Amino acid sequence: MTLALEPVDGIGEVRPGDDVAAIIAEHATLQDGDVVVVTSKIVSKAAGLAAPDKEQLLAEQTDRVVAERGGTRIVRTHHGLTMAAAGIDASNVETGSFLPLPPDPDASAREIRAGLARLTGCRVAVVVSDTAGRAWRNGQTDIAIGCAGLLPLDPFTGREDSYGNPLLVTAPAVADEVAGAAELASGKLGRRPVVVVRGLDERLLTEDDGPGAASIVRDEDSDLFGLGSREAVVAALAGPSRGFPITDAAPEDIVGLAAVPDGVTVTVDGATIQIESADPVAAGEIRQRLLALAHAHRLEVSVEASDAR
Amino acid sequence: MTLALEPVDGIGEVRPGDDVAAIIAEHATLQDGDVVVVTSKIVSKAAGLAAPDKEQLLAEQTDRVVAERGGTRIVRTHHGLTMAAAGIDASNVETGSFLPLPPDPDASAREIRAGLARLTGCRVAVVVSDTAGRAWRNGQTDIAIGCAGLLPLDPFTGREDSYGNPLLVTAPAVADEVAGAAELASGKLGRRPVVVVRGLDERLLTEDDGPGAASIVRDEDSDLFGLGSREAVVAALAGPSRGFPITDAAPEDIVGLAAVPDGVTVTVDGATIQIESADPVAAGEIRQRLLALAHAHRLEVSVEASDAR
Repeated sequence: MTLALEPVDGIGEVRPGDDVAAIIAEHATLQDGDVVVVTSKIVSKAAGLAAPDKEQLLAEQTDRVVAERGGTRIVRTHHGLTMAAAGIDASNVETGSFLPLPPDPDASAREIRAGLARLTGCRVAVVVSDTAGRAWRNGQTDIAIGCAGLLPLDPFTGREDSYGNPLLVTAPAVADEVAGAAELASGKLGRRPVVVVRGLDERLLTEDDGPGAASIVRDEDSDLFGLGSREAVVAALAGPSRGFPITDAAPEDIVGLAAVPDGVTVTVDGATIQIESADPVAAGEIRQRLLALAHAHRLEVSVEASDAR
Repeated sequence: MTLALEPVDGIGEVRPGDDVAAIIAEHATLQDGDVVVVTSKIVSKAAGLAAPDKEQLLAEQTDRVVAERGGTRIVRTHHGLTMAAAGIDASNVETGSFLPLPPDPDASAREIRAGLARLTGCRVAVVVSDTAGRAWRNGQTDIAIGCAGLLPLDPFTGREDSYGNPLLVTAPAVADEVAGAAELASGKLGRRPVVVVRGLDERLLTEDDGPGAASIVRDEDSDLFGLGSREAVVAALAGPSRGFPITDAAPEDIVGLAAVPDGVTVTVDGATIQIESADPVAAGEIRQRLLALAHAHRLEVSVEASDAR
């Protein structure tokens, strides 16, 4: 099986009001089973989303701040995407103009897919891609922010490897790999915002639109990296906040993590933790420690320190 | 430009002592400029790294723990990779056997590249790939853990988009996108551990071996996500620890973050922070808050709380 990626040439500037499916149908020769990868940029341009005020766009797109460093603000968008500057883009747009992500990239993918079916008679899948930074690694890759007609995750659960070992946890993020591969084929500088991927395992293609790229977004409650490490500390000290995963920790667990020193007594009674110490400064330290640990574990407790003198 | 990905058929079981380059040369028809993507699995198998004790392997591979949840331990390996169970693999290996990552995947890539040049006369690039989970997103993608003859990051710095806007920050992680694309073409279940990528922009290919995939590893000092959010809180409360990025914070900055309440006075004298309060429990709370913030900002200060009564 050969996988072939063909960038679509001849697409010029996309303008507000343009029909993205019509533009693709005009310039590409499609076949049943093709995956059409479209940059979010031309989807947003066609939707007329460009605006001059980056700060206002950022505020509108931001669900919450995840981490900050220097001038860079990594936020979780309303889509659930974690991206620097909410994915707002100033490259390949008119100078002084900023382009946010489409408000519903899965809906955009479905629309383009339906348009291509109508215009070309071909049953294709559509991926809407954007460029994102990653934790732990330099550089960016293109990822799928919208998807229709393709399984975004290939669930291996229940299948076996060639030794008969069950494959329990692996689920390749197919749509993200498709988006990254398309980026390789297009090259950002050439203004080729559409790439056709041919030869993908047909097992991955779906008759209906499928679950969309929203299904690749990790649920906030299970995300271990919902805050930068520094921001997590600031958040836990400030009080209950989003960005920490759900745990099943009990008050006893956080007492165990608090490294209570000799001379300080901590007792747990239901959701109340009581601290006693002849040294009230030490009692205050343990109180703050327990409160921060409770916030980080999303545990609701009250922590009382009594001055035992 | 068409990008074509061809999985190499006919590679059977790879055994300790096997010559990976010879196996590839035997089964693939290569051309100058091809990129040969090889799963780390067969590199590790050929190196005879399989072992029966997963816990011991994990301890050997772990530089430090990044985050834990249930039975899953996400660690930073000695390579600088952040991966669940240090990338140790139990699929597609003999039952009861576990396979760690190669100790120096860039060296493995260079060796295979040199071997292919010798055996085929072709100047190709080599990527050693592995499967990794991601922050914020479900599923896994294949990434490049080793690389030779290919620019792993395409530096856009200094170039301009088609509007003349400078591209300052974008650097596509080409090697990771190549690895992900190869995963798409191979399919994990088919035991096709080698994929040939043809048609990649020759600007990305290098005469020499190049900087290797180690250059995609984000330096720990600049990694905003060096610890899970929950683990970051536990670490900051426990004391100086790795996993927090370098900042240029001063003692005044962390005092500003500490939300000092009325009735508590905090003064900064060089690297010493002094807390005074008529309420010693409150003083203790602020002391713990400042210590945790100092650890999260990698700031060395001493924090003294005096009982003002």
